[in-house]
Amino acid sequence: MAEHETYRIGIDLGGTNIKIGIVNSSHKIIAHHSVKTLVDRHYTQIVQDMAEAVLFALKQANISVDSCQALGIGSPGCIDFKNGIVIFAGNLHWEQVPLLAELKKYINLPMGLSNDANCAALGEVIAGAAREYHNAVMITLGTGVGGGVVIDKKIFEGGHAGGTELGHTTILSGGEYCTCGRHGCFEAYASATALIRDTKRAAKKYPHSLLNQLCEGNLEHINGVTPFDAAKQGDPAAKEVVENYIKYLGEGIINMVNIFRPDVVLLSGGICNQGAYLTDPLNDYIKKYCFAGTRVYIPPVIRATLGNDAGIIGAASIVE
Amino acid sequence: MAEHETYRIGIDLGGTNIKIGIVNSSHKIIAHHSVKTLVDRHYTQIVQDMAEAVLFALKQANISVDSCQALGIGSPGCIDFKNGIVIFAGNLHWEQVPLLAELKKYINLPMGLSNDANCAALGEVIAGAAREYHNAVMITLGTGVGGGVVIDKKIFEGGHAGGTELGHTTILSGGEYCTCGRHGCFEAYASATALIRDTKRAAKKYPHSLLNQLCEGNLEHINGVTPFDAAKQGDPAAKEVVENYIKYLGEGIINMVNIFRPDVVLLSGGICNQGAYLTDPLNDYIKKYCFAGTRVYIPPVIRATLGNDAGIIGAASIVE
Repeated sequence: MAEHETYRIGIDLGGTNIKIGIVNSSHKIIAHHSVKTLVDRHYTQIVQDMAEAVLFALKQANISVDSCQALGIGSPGCIDFKNGIVIFAGNLHWEQVPLLAELKKYINLPMGLSNDANCAALGEVIAGAAREYHNAVMITLGTGVGGGVVIDKKIFEGGHAGGTELGHTTILSGGEYCTCGRHGCFEAYASATALIRDTKRAAKKYPHSLLNQLCEGNLEHINGVTPFDAAKQGDPAAKEVVENYIKYLGEGIINMVNIFRPDVVLLSGGICNQGAYLTDPLNDYIKKYCFAGTRVYIPPVIRATLGNDAGIIGAASIVE
Repeated sequence: MAEHETYRIGIDLGGTNIKIGIVNSSHKIIAHHSVKTLVDRHYTQIVQDMAEAVLFALKQANISVDSCQALGIGSPGCIDFKNGIVIFAGNLHWEQVPLLAELKKYINLPMGLSNDANCAALGEVIAGAAREYHNAVMITLGTGVGGGVVIDKKIFEGGHAGGTELGHTTILSGGEYCTCGRHGCFEAYASATALIRDTKRAAKKYPHSLLNQLCEGNLEHINGVTPFDAAKQGDPAAKEVVENYIKYLGEGIINMVNIFRPDVVLLSGGICNQGAYLTDPLNDYIKKYCFAGTRVYIPPVIRATLGNDAGIIGAASIVE
């Protein structure tokens, strides 16, 4: 351990695992630890486990709490970042949990709390795909569509808990039902769930499409890769699905560019493994339709690179 | 003039007039002056007139430049707020105009430049309808839909020129054509222009509707008040127009709430004279559909109150 080196602790709190990383001043995770969340317990028990896991990770790495500058947590759900409270998080079964106050009973460090998508965005800006940049919008294409915004290398929280829910902005009013209760949200078109839904519909509509061969006739085997595989082989039904998906993803991205005008737009989630096949048409679409065109800055759309580490590295840097 | 009183200068730069206000420390405009913009001239001439008008206004009010803290300008168009440059502004015929650098040749004060909609939002937060609040999203319903965002009593600019263009976010992909080149923008549904377009369509579709009587059979006489007047008298065609208008306005507002989660949403523009007839159903709609519902803060939607003064007062406070 280098003399004078200082560390930060980042925690990625999920419905299944609590992942802890000790991050050095170069934003590298130098020690990992993970414990089960076991969400059916009272939050005080979960937080006690979290604290013990942090102290265990520090001990394993031979680092004292005193040589740590700060601790940060990325949590799912709506976060009261000012008061360190999880307002609600469905997959934790939490409502109004004073997470930081509870954790401070065990660990005496400056602490920050933010939404997990915000932390991932900050992680990518600090140490990942956007480390050359100061401002970024990150869009996570998973079961839902998560959004994180970084301005001047800090998380942009908006005014209150429930902000930067970029996935829950209508792009097609009256369209597909969204889990939030509205119709036509960005999430209802750009999530992996939406892509799989549309692929299944296309497979049903075009029984002779390659989509049906790739899933061996079982639509439940369709995943987010299926439509891309079929489209790359020239299947018209799959191409239509992929083109539509990219169009709607582009619509949502342009909306965010016209609002935040960041240095860069980051995409994460398994769909991004499609690489340039996904980002090339997106970049073309955005150049064409961003407000004011080439007279103003048009951010590139690129893939995030840190994967699950982004959330830990970002959480570790919530407190400046 | 009170001893030790300090002042700020706010300028609302428009395609027709340059409006100047001397603002005191209570955010009251204590002196006004206005000169024609005459946009066909070279920008250096326009800025020279602007400087002379500022100095004239100060002299009339018996205030020295030295007793002013700062000067700010609200300009239409895309603004490079960091460098004080108007990147482009269609109604000024300007591209890449170094406005602040030019004005500093005449007046030696700290200066700030922002988009006029941003300045109006800041003015309302500092001294108008939102003065009890710190964060606000303001939406101006005029020829287009302008957007201004204030976070912690400061203008939120995003990363680069061309941000907070809230009107240019798709709410109905593939829908009505928008002047920005896309289809289905918030502006294409929630501007006064859109309301008049839809009212004309309804009048054509329902020749016996009250809409046709109110405009005495001349559709060109239809304005933003016509559909509300007819709807209040129970006309079904007008009610449909107004309900649709409010629905789409609500969609756009919810999007901005889910992104910025401000303390308050401010509406401005002539349509807001409809008062509670407009804001009551909007508030109901937003309560119903905002992300996470009543578990998180839901901002009220209210009318802006400062009118044209908002832009001047806000501009005066760009520099902190």
